[in-house]
Amino acid sequence: MTATQSNQTATESLSPLRPSETFMRVTEVPAKEILDGTIRGHYAHGDAMTFGEVLLDANTVVPMHEHPHEQMTYVIDGRFEFTVGAETRILEPGMLVIIPGGARHGGTTLTACRVIDVFSPVREDYRS
Amino acid sequence: MTATQSNQTATESLSPLRPSETFMRVTEVPAKEILDGTIRGHYAHGDAMTFGEVLLDANTVVPMHEHPHEQMTYVIDGRFEFTVGAETRILEPGMLVIIPGGARHGGTTLTACRVIDVFSPVREDYRS
Repeated sequence: MTATQSNQTATESLSPLRPSETFMRVTEVPAKEILDGTIRGHYAHGDAMTFGEVLLDANTVVPMHEHPHEQMTYVIDGRFEFTVGAETRILEPGMLVIIPGGARHGGTTLTACRVIDVFSPVREDYRS
Repeated sequence: MTATQSNQTATESLSPLRPSETFMRVTEVPAKEILDGTIRGHYAHGDAMTFGEVLLDANTVVPMHEHPHEQMTYVIDGRFEFTVGAETRILEPGMLVIIPGGARHGGTTLTACRVIDVFSPVREDYRS
C-alpha cells in the first residue's frame, strides 16, 4: 500500500487478513483437539502468555488436573460447572476464574461453551 | 454446605455469588475509568497476569503508548482500529492482537467495544 491511499482503502485491503504474527482471528489458528474432539482449543502464544479461544461441547467432563502455569478462564458463551480446589461454581457469560499455578481444577460443561483460557508462562506443550 | 447435599442444591446455593478471590463476575470489580470515563476497565489480578474486561465508547481514541508488560487484546463485541508499531488493522469480534512488551500501540474504536485485555506481568498500577 502507498502513503497516498486513503485510510478507507487501506483498511479494506486488509480483508481477508494477511498473515501476521501480531493480528489474528483466533479460531483460524488450527485447533488442538482434546478428549476426542469434544474440546477444540485455538491457541496463540506470546513471550509471556498463551491465549486460547476454546470451544467445548455440552456435557464435556474436563477431568481434575493441574499444571504449573497460572490460568484464567473467562466464559463468553455457555454454562460451565467448574471446580478449583474445594470450591465449585457455575460459570456463566462474563464470569472469570483465577487458577493459581499448581492448583487442581476441572469441571463439566452444562451447555456448549466458548471460553477464553489464558496462561502464564507460555504453554509450550500447546505449540504443536 | 454438607456432604449430604445434592450437587443441584449446592450449585443453587451459589447464586448470588459469595465473595471469592477465585470466581468472579469481572464487571462487578469496580471499574478503573480512563480518558474521562470513555474507557471503563474492570481488572482482576493473579500472581502472573492481570485480566481485564474493558468497555469503550464509540470513537474513543486510545493514544499510542507503551509499557513493559506483554498485552493481548481480544475483541468480544465491536470494531476497533488498532495499531501496533507500524501495523494497523480493524479488530472485529473473535480477533486477537499480541502486543510485545515495550511495543507502541493504540487505536480508535469504530463502535462501542467490549474487549478482553490480558497482561503479564501483573499491572500493579491497575490494582487501585
